[in-house]
Amino acid sequence: MPARLTLVLGGARSGKSAHAEALARGAAVAGVLPAYVATAEALDAEMAERIARHRADRDGQFETFETTLDLGETLRRAAARGAPVLVDCLTLWITNLMVHERDIAAAVADFGDALDAVEVPVVLVANEVGLGIVPDNAMARRFRDEAGRLNQRLAARAETVLFIAAGLPLRLKG
Amino acid sequence: MPARLTLVLGGARSGKSAHAEALARGAAVAGVLPAYVATAEALDAEMAERIARHRADRDGQFETFETTLDLGETLRRAAARGAPVLVDCLTLWITNLMVHERDIAAAVADFGDALDAVEVPVVLVANEVGLGIVPDNAMARRFRDEAGRLNQRLAARAETVLFIAAGLPLRLKG
Amino acid sequence: MPARLTLVLGGARSGKSAHAEALARGAAVAGVLPAYVATAEALDAEMAERIARHRADRDGQFETFETTLDLGETLRRAAARGAPVLVDCLTLWITNLMVHERDIAAAVADFGDALDAVEVPVVLVANEVGLGIVPDNAMARRFRDEAGRLNQRLAARAETVLFIAAGLPLRLKG
Repeated sequence: MPARLTLVLGGARSGKSAHAEALARGAAVAGVLPAYVATAEALDAEMAERIARHRADRDGQFETFETTLDLGETLRRAAARGAPVLVDCLTLWITNLMVHERDIAAAVADFGDALDAVEVPVVLVANEVGLGIVPDNAMARRFRDEAGRLNQRLAARAETVLFIAAGLPLRLKG
Repeated sequence: MPARLTLVLGGARSGKSAHAEALARGAAVAGVLPAYVATAEALDAEMAERIARHRADRDGQFETFETTLDLGETLRRAAARGAPVLVDCLTLWITNLMVHERDIAAAVADFGDALDAVEVPVVLVANEVGLGIVPDNAMARRFRDEAGRLNQRLAARAETVLFIAAGLPLRLKG
Repeated sequence: MPARLTLVLGGARSGKSAHAEALARGAAVAGVLPAYVATAEALDAEMAERIARHRADRDGQFETFETTLDLGETLRRAAARGAPVLVDCLTLWITNLMVHERDIAAAVADFGDALDAVEVPVVLVANEVGLGIVPDNAMARRFRDEAGRLNQRLAARAETVLFIAAGLPLRLKG
């Protein structure tokens, strides 16, 4: 069990990442930058530009770890530094696993084991994606199912769960 | 007026059904299984598989009633057993009415009459579908309007309204 | 700074407009109708029909101002009457600015200046659009970003922020 697990949920452009970053910085110990585990994969120019902008935004405030698939392993490495770890975001990670046709159940189980093993505060960012109309294509529906299921599972084990809208937090738990 | 009306709202894979099932079982009287009114219609293999999985999940915990269109009538029959009734879900029912080109206003009015007449606790599950971007096609926009209007109407008469995200309830009313 | 700024967020058919209208009427002074700033543009018959229905609904309860692009200027004119101003809605305004290829940053800055200058209670209605899956097309993603960013900015300066679901308010702030 990590010292403390916080799940930050929200929609696109809800301010969830900024809120989660503030939580991770607030939990940091003096002299050690918190870790930032980024899961975004630059599949096109638009994504590459977003990733570069986000990296510049957190320059000097976080030690960055990048991973697109092996989140459990990266969480273990990031946590070994002894500072809080922020993972942004789980929903992109699920997307990556689907795009690369990985075994999602196995990857989620490994990530769960890593969460059990680490001893630093962990802040997880995830998108809420199930509140629009049913998507046309089966892939998007499966993605929505996988993302929603992971959110439920992590919310059940987190001490604190927040839902962010327009930059403001609603406390779902803790 | 039913003894008690609860509306459980949430997105896809939000955990709303599991939460509603727990509420209905909790309201049940000893010796009589609560009723489960399922509105899903197996339009394709994916839906058929979901329906079968859901049916297996609740085996032995609910008496199941299936209806795709005549929800008012089915609610009356289900409630006559004297145990709580769970309806899952209203949004699929609206979809069914649209697909079969039924008179939605008339069906909703009949369902409202049935809610007035029954004397057992009723738990209704509905999807929140209006929080994504505006859908491309007019049918989806009309669906979104009908579903949203029904949610507002039932929320106004319910004693308790919950919004579920990641399996956790936010209390909107009651 | 306006006397009081309220931001009402919600999805399509969430009841956010009705809630906002009640807030604006409640803040009105005797003898002067509150102002209603409508941003909807009739791009097709469906929109024209919605606009006409909304206009009829508020007949005799609001003094209506219509604008599709120059929201800052319209807010100043509407506020000069000395009664509360309701703006419905900001998300359509962002859509209009994008469709007409206006400078969104400049328009938002001008609107911010107008909010600073007016001395009546202002109620703003905006859509939450980021809670479905990622849209297929780049224009929709950019719209989602712009709308979300504006919501965050206004939420930060508002005294009260409400999230409406099924006609019921959740208080995010104030």
